[in-house]
Amino acid sequence: MASNNDLIAVNTIRTLAADVVSKSNSGHPGAPMGMAPAAHVLWTRHLNFSSKNPKWYNRDRFVLSNGHACVLQYIMLHLSGYKVSMDDLKSFRQIDSITPGHPELGVTEGIEVTTGPLGQGISNAVGLAIAQAHLGAVFNKDGYNIIDNHTYVFLGDGCLQEGVASEACSLAGHLKLANLIAIYDDNKITIDGDTAVSFTEDVELRFKSYGWNVLHVENGDEDYEAIEKAISAAQKNSSAPTIINLKTTIGYGSLKAGGHDVHGAPLKKDDLIQLKKKFGFNPDETFAVPQETTDLYKATAEKGAKKEAAWNDLFKSYAEKYPLEASELTRRMEGRLPEGWEKALPTYSTSDAAVGSRKLSETTITKLVEVLPELMGGSADLTGSNLTRWKGADDFQHPSTGLGHYGGRYIRFGVREHGMVAICNGMAAYGGIIPFSATFLNFVSYAAGAVRLSALSHLRVLNVATHDSIGLGEDGPTHQPVETAAWLRAVPNLAFWRPADGNETSATYLVAILSQHTPSVMAFSRQNLPQLQNSSIEKATKGGYVLDDIENPDLTIVSTGSEVPLCVEAAKLLKEKGIKTRIVSMPCIEVFNSQDTKYKLSVLPSGAPVLSVEAYSTFGWGSLSHDHFGLKAWGASGPFDKVYAKFDMTPEGIAKRGEKVVAFYKKRGQPVFSPLISALDDITE
Amino acid sequence: MASNNDLIAVNTIRTLAADVVSKSNSGHPGAPMGMAPAAHVLWTRHLNFSSKNPKWYNRDRFVLSNGHACVLQYIMLHLSGYKVSMDDLKSFRQIDSITPGHPELGVTEGIEVTTGPLGQGISNAVGLAIAQAHLGAVFNKDGYNIIDNHTYVFLGDGCLQEGVASEACSLAGHLKLANLIAIYDDNKITIDGDTAVSFTEDVELRFKSYGWNVLHVENGDEDYEAIEKAISAAQKNSSAPTIINLKTTIGYGSLKAGGHDVHGAPLKKDDLIQLKKKFGFNPDETFAVPQETTDLYKATAEKGAKKEAAWNDLFKSYAEKYPLEASELTRRMEGRLPEGWEKALPTYSTSDAAVGSRKLSETTITKLVEVLPELMGGSADLTGSNLTRWKGADDFQHPSTGLGHYGGRYIRFGVREHGMVAICNGMAAYGGIIPFSATFLNFVSYAAGAVRLSALSHLRVLNVATHDSIGLGEDGPTHQPVETAAWLRAVPNLAFWRPADGNETSATYLVAILSQHTPSVMAFSRQNLPQLQNSSIEKATKGGYVLDDIENPDLTIVSTGSEVPLCVEAAKLLKEKGIKTRIVSMPCIEVFNSQDTKYKLSVLPSGAPVLSVEAYSTFGWGSLSHDHFGLKAWGASGPFDKVYAKFDMTPEGIAKRGEKVVAFYKKRGQPVFSPLISALDDITE
Ligand SMILES: [Ca+2]
Ligand SMILES: [Ca+2]
Repeated sequence: MASNNDLIAVNTIRTLAADVVSKSNSGHPGAPMGMAPAAHVLWTRHLNFSSKNPKWYNRDRFVLSNGHACVLQYIMLHLSGYKVSMDDLKSFRQIDSITPGHPELGVTEGIEVTTGPLGQGISNAVGLAIAQAHLGAVFNKDGYNIIDNHTYVFLGDGCLQEGVASEACSLAGHLKLANLIAIYDDNKITIDGDTAVSFTEDVELRFKSYGWNVLHVENGDEDYEAIEKAISAAQKNSSAPTIINLKTTIGYGSLKAGGHDVHGAPLKKDDLIQLKKKFGFNPDETFAVPQETTDLYKATAEKGAKKEAAWNDLFKSYAEKYPLEASELTRRMEGRLPEGWEKALPTYSTSDAAVGSRKLSETTITKLVEVLPELMGGSADLTGSNLTRWKGADDFQHPSTGLGHYGGRYIRFGVREHGMVAICNGMAAYGGIIPFSATFLNFVSYAAGAVRLSALSHLRVLNVATHDSIGLGEDGPTHQPVETAAWLRAVPNLAFWRPADGNETSATYLVAILSQHTPSVMAFSRQNLPQLQNSSIEKATKGGYVLDDIENPDLTIVSTGSEVPLCVEAAKLLKEKGIKTRIVSMPCIEVFNSQDTKYKLSVLPSGAPVLSVEAYSTFGWGSLSHDHFGLKAWGASGPFDKVYAKFDMTPEGIAKRGEKVVAFYKKRGQPVFSPLISALDDITE
Repeated sequence: MASNNDLIAVNTIRTLAADVVSKSNSGHPGAPMGMAPAAHVLWTRHLNFSSKNPKWYNRDRFVLSNGHACVLQYIMLHLSGYKVSMDDLKSFRQIDSITPGHPELGVTEGIEVTTGPLGQGISNAVGLAIAQAHLGAVFNKDGYNIIDNHTYVFLGDGCLQEGVASEACSLAGHLKLANLIAIYDDNKITIDGDTAVSFTEDVELRFKSYGWNVLHVENGDEDYEAIEKAISAAQKNSSAPTIINLKTTIGYGSLKAGGHDVHGAPLKKDDLIQLKKKFGFNPDETFAVPQETTDLYKATAEKGAKKEAAWNDLFKSYAEKYPLEASELTRRMEGRLPEGWEKALPTYSTSDAAVGSRKLSETTITKLVEVLPELMGGSADLTGSNLTRWKGADDFQHPSTGLGHYGGRYIRFGVREHGMVAICNGMAAYGGIIPFSATFLNFVSYAAGAVRLSALSHLRVLNVATHDSIGLGEDGPTHQPVETAAWLRAVPNLAFWRPADGNETSATYLVAILSQHTPSVMAFSRQNLPQLQNSSIEKATKGGYVLDDIENPDLTIVSTGSEVPLCVEAAKLLKEKGIKTRIVSMPCIEVFNSQDTKYKLSVLPSGAPVLSVEAYSTFGWGSLSHDHFGLKAWGASGPFDKVYAKFDMTPEGIAKRGEKVVAFYKKRGQPVFSPLISALDDITE
């Protein structure tokens, strides 16, 4: 039953939200004031959390998909006893505070995923729900529902308009993720004004079409009981995710309530005064939390702590009955990799067959799934092309489909690249899982919004990106990445790998999996590649290394992936012309750049010009080479070898350019310095 | 009525599709064989086209959103008399053929938009339909429906799974684009197999939720009359776009019909033989077109030519009655800009106020809409932030909403960035319109899939990208682009502009609008920027120019946008230390790179080191500067000046680095060469 204390607490949240945004003179008061009742009811009556141990594994996950409303989330964390102090609220949106403009994973305790870019949070939530469903299926035993948390999401009109949300929600419906409960803040307002200007679809019907359980609360401003009942009903539905359409008034209580003026700007002074008066607060006081509210949330936090304690007891008993499972689950909860897993990585010698590196990736995945049960993922409807499904894989599907079960580790993402990576972000954030996605490299771009958030959120997501160049051949320019590598290399905290052979492929997976806080995009070829002489896992883990050395070189060629063997052949042609050529293989520029100066200068020393060769835009190679051979524009449709020939990217074409570079620098007669030389990075010989 | 000739024609299309893919040994026979009846009925009974004048302005637009089925489209073009010969069909997917692996605008006559990347075509089609609705509203007169074509789309399961399609289709429903008719190839198969593995949503219900008219054809393989009736019913609906759910059998006729084996690989030889036998074709003959089919399509082409002739007559009479309108429409159909339009571009001097460049953009748009009626666009729900809506603008809305009319030129895209740019691609492809989109620079990434297709398709789309750096301040790292500029600069045929002041903003719009075959992303600041001494429209149109020159410089600083004025201040500090500094402003690297060598070397000559300064990842600056000052990782949340201070990106911080660079190169005591020097680009002093 809604008590007076509930009302006081809700109005506390509302006035706090207004005060926080006023103090920082920046932020969004409208949605927090409108969603305060839902937040209050969810927190005090439903959400299982332990504010003293925010990482309690079986906690319910809460995701604020409309991340601009983060004042609300920070206030709830503060009231509930997390490490978010009143001073932190007062430093909202200030430099180096733990209350930045949008919620960031790793910055604030209790924030499960980074949100703000619209549509991401709800999609992450689908990933969190997949992780729970999977781990529950794997580890729960009769009477031991060790993993059974819910994932709750708040989302607004903006999230629902984003395509990424459509993708993820359609898949969530297909997967019947019943532990996912979304509350839609249906306030009829977006930044451009009334939703009537652009968003008139029937959201409830749309979610029915996805197979969701659709509920409705008519008065989300005042009817706390209806909110509680809807959430309870959602919890009871065991066959579908639920969306609760909650009608609210944006900026409830403000003079501007119900309008878009209250969305993204502080309340005016007189408005703030009348708001507090209306709610029975002292208008001269700011950041007030009445004792009733403090007590209510203290009790809520204690209830949560008890739930954690009960779970700890349950887990103890589980560990006695199922010691192996408990030890394995503990390992995964703690994020430790199994001892010696890396021994499963295959090594190759030159006598091994030439195959596409997508095939090498398949071999590696097949070995790794045996030793890494936390490896879980799939493809955006390109399974047979990405080669990501290992023999004997079970699909992650609702058992009622007859196509798999929740214990399955292979995910059929459908043609939903953006949703896929956002879902992987959620799975990684859950913990205990190393998720992987797969599509063509060119279509990783569709997922750009989520890829950048993997990196910003320090989430280990592996992205398999096959058909990585013009080498995909006949599909043509629409499918051939040219700019993609440059983009990915420019994203901070993201490793873009492009291995040249089997050993480099193993190194790619090795570093990607060991990089606990960094996502990777791993580019693999469609066309066959020979196993290189002198490659090794160890060397490739440096990101770049000397593949073929020679004394007093005239030229260094640096290359990646499928172009490396072409450069090796080119070096032979150059040798015939008396040009001594070193070959550097550079599977990952970001990892190479992280090596020490001495090593880097040993790979790309002064003395001879450096020519880069890559079947992409040359953009970005200026920091690693003096001259660059790549694609000036788009690719072409045709058999792959003819496409390479069209762009002169053959041993002969490369040798011709090598010759030209050497002649050019000889003629200049000036010393040639390593392209790495830099005053600001303190790099000099 | 379906005649025997219809059946022969449909089976001709099917066997041709199988033959083409067999000959090239690459491609997708399944969807063409399944969609042959729909294509045949549409082409012979509904589609208005003129194969001898493929650019006839009022032709119906046909979009193959499932572009991998392009064999079908090439065959239809061939049969209908377009410049696609049988030899062209035989060169399918071969180098330099006009029948590449996916349809490309500009490569093949009759191809309206580039498709293949899933979800794009249907979204382009929404843009084509918007263009028609708008131009019809502006130019049609009583009795003169000069612009009244339909846009027809074929799309498959893959397109429907993509978020971009959800965005565009939701908006199409909102806008009630009745001239848009989509035919959904509901064949229950995707690359991963049965749609049951990932795509079980109720598509019909989903489109009802968007407000579409939903029709259904149960037997799309054989019931030609039902197809015709559905299309006719769709044409009659004047209040909503229509989707026809057409149940088909993928690879109809093949032994593998109904399965995913027939999706993306040639038919086996025995299968091809039985197919032809079953359809009454000679199994020993390939690429056969029976006389009945030739005749039928000849008659169809003649019917189309007559329609064009009738339209020409109508237009002639229209021109007599409405000479001004006819002359203006002719100008727009021909893609000519109005005489002297560029005089509307504002110029600035240092006495003009410091304002955000988004505000300068607003001023420019406001001037341009007066002289360029073809300029039309809007924002993804950030109108008040992007400042893209000019005073007195009318919204493009269905008149029944009371919010605007189809003659309106301001589009409320909703929070749908990817759909927005894909829609703009369609509007640009229609002709007669210069579309613009708007969002924060950071969220242009959401539209990456469509942005690359603007560039590949040579479409003049203007993208307004405000809040272009850490200078957006409090919204924080989730909203602050770091990698975005590098990505956009690496896309071929795309101009990324970042003007530093008012004159550079005018230059940005000038070049963007004059570049008839190149899209632009125009980055604008939120924070105020002073009007620079020595800037001019003319200089800025070179992409990069010397803003502050000095004899015998010790240092050149090259910078863009909001960092240029910081560098100007830094140069003053450096002067006090006796360091003579030149300043280069580089609003558009791509345009600068297209200048001649002499000019480029005059801007970035040898002799002194070059330091780049930009509040982004430094990736890519290696080809233009010796040392690079930028962001090593992500931004921060706080007031914008404090965020800049946090990263030391202030006049003092820049001067400190300038000093370091100068000292470093002095100490090395070696000649400093222009970073532009390149053997392969033949750049030397
Ligand atoms: Ca809203
Ligand atoms: Ca299909």
